[in-house]
Amino acid sequence: MREIGIGLIGTGFMGKAHALAFRAARAVLGDVPAARLELLCDTPAKRAAQMAEQFGFSRSTDDWHVLVNDPAVNIVSITTPNRMHCEMALAAIEAGKHVYCEKPMGLTLEETQAMARAAGKAGVKTMVGYNYIKNPAFEHARGLIAQGAIGTPVHFRGFVDEDYQADPESAWTWRARIEEAGLGALGDLGCHLVSMAYGLMGPIESLIADMQTIHESRPMPDGNGRGAVENEDVASALVRFASGAQGILATSRSAWGRKNRLGFEVHGTTGMIAFEQERMNELQVYQNQGPAAEHGFKTILTGPAHGTYGAFCPAPGHQLGFNDLKVLEAGAFLREIAGGDKFGPDFAEALEFEKVIHAIAASAREGQRVTI
Amino acid sequence: MREIGIGLIGTGFMGKAHALAFRAARAVLGDVPAARLELLCDTPAKRAAQMAEQFGFSRSTDDWHVLVNDPAVNIVSITTPNRMHCEMALAAIEAGKHVYCEKPMGLTLEETQAMARAAGKAGVKTMVGYNYIKNPAFEHARGLIAQGAIGTPVHFRGFVDEDYQADPESAWTWRARIEEAGLGALGDLGCHLVSMAYGLMGPIESLIADMQTIHESRPMPDGNGRGAVENEDVASALVRFASGAQGILATSRSAWGRKNRLGFEVHGTTGMIAFEQERMNELQVYQNQGPAAEHGFKTILTGPAHGTYGAFCPAPGHQLGFNDLKVLEAGAFLREIAGGDKFGPDFAEALEFEKVIHAIAASAREGQRVTI
Amino acid sequence: MREIGIGLIGTGFMGKAHALAFRAARAVLGDVPAARLELLCDTPAKRAAQMAEQFGFSRSTDDWHVLVNDPAVNIVSITTPNRMHCEMALAAIEAGKHVYCEKPMGLTLEETQAMARAAGKAGVKTMVGYNYIKNPAFEHARGLIAQGAIGTPVHFRGFVDEDYQADPESAWTWRARIEEAGLGALGDLGCHLVSMAYGLMGPIESLIADMQTIHESRPMPDGNGRGAVENEDVASALVRFASGAQGILATSRSAWGRKNRLGFEVHGTTGMIAFEQERMNELQVYQNQGPAAEHGFKTILTGPAHGTYGAFCPAPGHQLGFNDLKVLEAGAFLREIAGGDKFGPDFAEALEFEKVIHAIAASAREGQRVTI
Amino acid sequence: MREIGIGLIGTGFMGKAHALAFRAARAVLGDVPAARLELLCDTPAKRAAQMAEQFGFSRSTDDWHVLVNDPAVNIVSITTPNRMHCEMALAAIEAGKHVYCEKPMGLTLEETQAMARAAGKAGVKTMVGYNYIKNPAFEHARGLIAQGAIGTPVHFRGFVDEDYQADPESAWTWRARIEEAGLGALGDLGCHLVSMAYGLMGPIESLIADMQTIHESRPMPDGNGRGAVENEDVASALVRFASGAQGILATSRSAWGRKNRLGFEVHGTTGMIAFEQERMNELQVYQNQGPAAEHGFKTILTGPAHGTYGAFCPAPGHQLGFNDLKVLEAGAFLREIAGGDKFGPDFAEALEFEKVIHAIAASAREGQRVTI
Repeated sequence: MREIGIGLIGTGFMGKAHALAFRAARAVLGDVPAARLELLCDTPAKRAAQMAEQFGFSRSTDDWHVLVNDPAVNIVSITTPNRMHCEMALAAIEAGKHVYCEKPMGLTLEETQAMARAAGKAGVKTMVGYNYIKNPAFEHARGLIAQGAIGTPVHFRGFVDEDYQADPESAWTWRARIEEAGLGALGDLGCHLVSMAYGLMGPIESLIADMQTIHESRPMPDGNGRGAVENEDVASALVRFASGAQGILATSRSAWGRKNRLGFEVHGTTGMIAFEQERMNELQVYQNQGPAAEHGFKTILTGPAHGTYGAFCPAPGHQLGFNDLKVLEAGAFLREIAGGDKFGPDFAEALEFEKVIHAIAASAREGQRVTI
Repeated sequence: MREIGIGLIGTGFMGKAHALAFRAARAVLGDVPAARLELLCDTPAKRAAQMAEQFGFSRSTDDWHVLVNDPAVNIVSITTPNRMHCEMALAAIEAGKHVYCEKPMGLTLEETQAMARAAGKAGVKTMVGYNYIKNPAFEHARGLIAQGAIGTPVHFRGFVDEDYQADPESAWTWRARIEEAGLGALGDLGCHLVSMAYGLMGPIESLIADMQTIHESRPMPDGNGRGAVENEDVASALVRFASGAQGILATSRSAWGRKNRLGFEVHGTTGMIAFEQERMNELQVYQNQGPAAEHGFKTILTGPAHGTYGAFCPAPGHQLGFNDLKVLEAGAFLREIAGGDKFGPDFAEALEFEKVIHAIAASAREGQRVTI
Repeated sequence: MREIGIGLIGTGFMGKAHALAFRAARAVLGDVPAARLELLCDTPAKRAAQMAEQFGFSRSTDDWHVLVNDPAVNIVSITTPNRMHCEMALAAIEAGKHVYCEKPMGLTLEETQAMARAAGKAGVKTMVGYNYIKNPAFEHARGLIAQGAIGTPVHFRGFVDEDYQADPESAWTWRARIEEAGLGALGDLGCHLVSMAYGLMGPIESLIADMQTIHESRPMPDGNGRGAVENEDVASALVRFASGAQGILATSRSAWGRKNRLGFEVHGTTGMIAFEQERMNELQVYQNQGPAAEHGFKTILTGPAHGTYGAFCPAPGHQLGFNDLKVLEAGAFLREIAGGDKFGPDFAEALEFEKVIHAIAASAREGQRVTI
Repeated sequence: MREIGIGLIGTGFMGKAHALAFRAARAVLGDVPAARLELLCDTPAKRAAQMAEQFGFSRSTDDWHVLVNDPAVNIVSITTPNRMHCEMALAAIEAGKHVYCEKPMGLTLEETQAMARAAGKAGVKTMVGYNYIKNPAFEHARGLIAQGAIGTPVHFRGFVDEDYQADPESAWTWRARIEEAGLGALGDLGCHLVSMAYGLMGPIESLIADMQTIHESRPMPDGNGRGAVENEDVASALVRFASGAQGILATSRSAWGRKNRLGFEVHGTTGMIAFEQERMNELQVYQNQGPAAEHGFKTILTGPAHGTYGAFCPAPGHQLGFNDLKVLEAGAFLREIAGGDKFGPDFAEALEFEKVIHAIAASAREGQRVTI
């Protein structure tokens, strides 16, 4: 297969990110097939056509059913609002397409389970948009831990905060409604953190949690009264990993000043690794080695010595950006489809992440420990 | 009262800090009485005499009962290991002395309660060594919140980590034994964090928690086998404040690379304030003001515009150090005894802090929410 | 003109960056014509063909003369070693092509002058690869200064350091030879700093300078003896701007630990702005406004409120990377060719930057002030 | 000699710092004689008496001649405005006293030379208040360089910036007048930087420099017109060390946002060390060791493993403050007087530092290289 045909549904934040990523993947990485930008879907048709022209897709449609059934489409990319993911993914799987779906996969855990089940049965390849774990800095952290650079990981501190719902007077949107958005901060942000915790510490066994809705209503966009905020602005959990380690997961979409502050500390028996997405090209590593007078956290700037960085730039410290993470993700999926190793997470693995955010919500509602 | 007579028990880390603080307080602050370094107690007598000479005390003793009953002593400073605090404090109170006691006050909550009760009944003044809340940076944070600079505080993230018990092969000490040390990381570190949370967010109403002992035994210092570690290396809690806000408290004494990383984020409805003790002269403040393009966290370096800083130095950015916090604490106590306002925390207020750490331990043991 | 045909010479670091940038520009920016990747040149022919396939160019050649004369090529991108820039650019200009050339333009100031002259005469559009000034963070800095946010700029501190020539035992390359590379750190790095100084402070009138060659010889790559390092590892200059402001320019290619540390401080009469490329999504701004207790440097994370950032990502704090700067640069050139405003620098403006680096070298050699 | 008698002239910023330092030195350090706070001089007499009582001096006077001749005074501490240093120091030396003088020693180089000559002839001990080089972080940097931890030092970047003269409308003071203050930023700030450069890189052989007076006049404090600013707000120099290394020295007293930003980078052949006084308990160290993927700047937090830190606190990361540097300085002088090793700088060594700042001023005035 020289080229892989892409059908992309959605042209918003993530839609554009997918389009750019598929455009760039082979040119950047070299070892993945080229993506043929085949068909773009959005509504109305005019917007679809316009964005197809801008993004470089050959054709456009306003009917996603057409897209998932188009014979020239090999990968269906789903970047629509959460409530549409499940139906679209199931249809694409039924049509035998590989599916690249944004997170969270489903509105509810049941939907996510149905998606994972269908993909498993059909044997198609899947990828979920947990892009932050594709960062060479993250991969380096994972590699260091695997090599024992900080001994045994015994504790985890994780956080993911933004401020897009911090302003009490910003207008009500569908994101506040459980039927349309599902979970709040947990579904939008918290699941990214879980993907990191999983990669670094392994599976979570049980947890206790608490949640807050800071702004209980918001002004309706049409100026008529206020709409209720049904889901959480903030969630926090104390988790126990299968390994015996413990940890904290914390997320807020109402944390003023935090724009994309996703990060972690892994406490090991001989060292620590820390990371923050707002400085996504830096890794902090402390090792209990050598004389005490020379101990300190080392700030490692990513460079060609770190995994896939070199495909973007042969010089260290030149910085990758957010969209580059999507190139790595799309590239990994293209490579897998062409017979290479799986990078993931596929639907089955992402289901494990999403079980955790739903368990956090359940524990917070019920006030007791939940086992996963 | 021109001078206030000091009787100091203990010459270790905190003993020295108290001695230095009393030596400096009037010279630095100007508006507090001079401390007369009257009597120093340690064992053996020779060490007491030696340190008395070094620290500038007039006399020394190896019998703390003598010290607490000495008529020239007005303040009894208690800086001995935790298990001795209660007995000494009760004796000093009985002798009508004012008491300056290091934290945590008691080995158990019962001891702490007894101490608070006795002090209240006797009407003596008390001060507990929660020195970090004397930092002008902290006071500025508290002031900003009180003025509404970040709106209503709705969420708190707090942490206090060190690494003095991170090395699995460092020798067993009395700190690992409940009968001698009481709580582990909570008693040594966590209570400082509670003092900050309290000052910024008000009282905590209930919490759920978890704990870990990372290194379950340690080599005995005499080389004969290993001793059990009975108390926690790590503790984490999800708290609910009386105000309705929620938050996280986290502490570890086994966090490699963290030397004194005590800090917090206060999330407000219009801004955020963050602080870390390892950069104790800096405060991070974000306010949702002005055009979005100019938003950002402001790093405020403390200076004479911030409370008591100017007493140390008329120039900003010149940095206070740890011992300066003790000068502020000792000075505040001298001022109060001379008739000035209370700064605190006194035994009654510190009891509230220590209730929280014992509640965290109880919740972690019992696996359920504890109301304070 | 629906599409603009690109002819790219070179497939190394910058060659790939140009290819990626042209692939992405229209998809990202929307308001620029699409680039048609027409012809790629490298040697040997096999490499050219391979990279053309990877980068998505329609055709390839190993003869740059063919490329500059190809009728389907509208823009000639020159990313070859410095000594070839001038000849290629002159040929492309003669063929009536627009030219996008990497910095520094020429090996010598004479070459650069010849290039600028030819372009001016021919009336073709030109762009020089001063990519760092396309960063929205930099544009925001420039905008703030223009609005008077820090008063009148009175002093400049600039630095640009890397460590690719820090290791005394790394092998000799053509970069060490004046005939092949021209200037050393000044030509490779220093000129970027000048482009920033210019944009923020205006033209430089005179300067005094000093230079060092830290490692005077290097082992030859074939293991036979050592080759001389003819150009500077380090250069420093004290400059006077036409505005009356003064400043410092400093560059080193032998600064261990610095990977791409290009940055500046602009001291104004009412504030300061500081920036470092290794954290290219952050700007530090201090303004003498409001009460002293609230003064501090604000760390602004770039986002959609800052110029072109939003074309990459609608969410702040998600980070642009190095290659995104090239997208902005290529996009700006495509826009200009399609009739939009000039962003620059074109050959005439870049000549002004390169005059400064040659003046620094001259002053250092002669030991006296040089007027530009 | 059990105790050393202190006579202190001045009770301002530095006067208080000296008083506090002498009060604390023996208690902190243990291995230095106690300072007996004998006599304090200021005008009017009432202020002298008041501050003597606050600082704990036994007696006070408003006549410095009395102080320098008092038989109970062993050390004369001079903390008055610069123009009085020379006369006072010469009188103290003549009276056979040891002299602890704030920097810069003299108003002019001639004064400084006279002071150094007199001290040398009289054989009294002297100490100049270059307190920043007493920081354990600085000593650790020096030690690392001496051990070859960064190879051979080849380049130096130094800066020292404050903003106390940044506001164009702050009132004229004597600091602006050459007859009263001597040099501007160079004398007040720049000399500290020279003391660091010297300690790390050895003597400076020659330099070229430039200077600016940013605000040429200031409003008179009495509201009547404006007074001229005669000395420099900003100075910059390119220096050559005797070792063959080069470097940059930069200072400004008009750099908004900088409160005490004194710092350096030492570039070595195998690594780099960097420091900033505004984070005075941190040292940045990069070493070219181990695999490239693990390279990075290490942030070392000072602790008991670093020289004299442990005398203040047995726990790392607890932070020293500005006044602690003065304790180390006063302690070093007491130790030397009691027969211990010299720490310095004494008048002879400080003269070398001050030669450099005067050479910078001369080079800037004359526009040519000055050899020291």
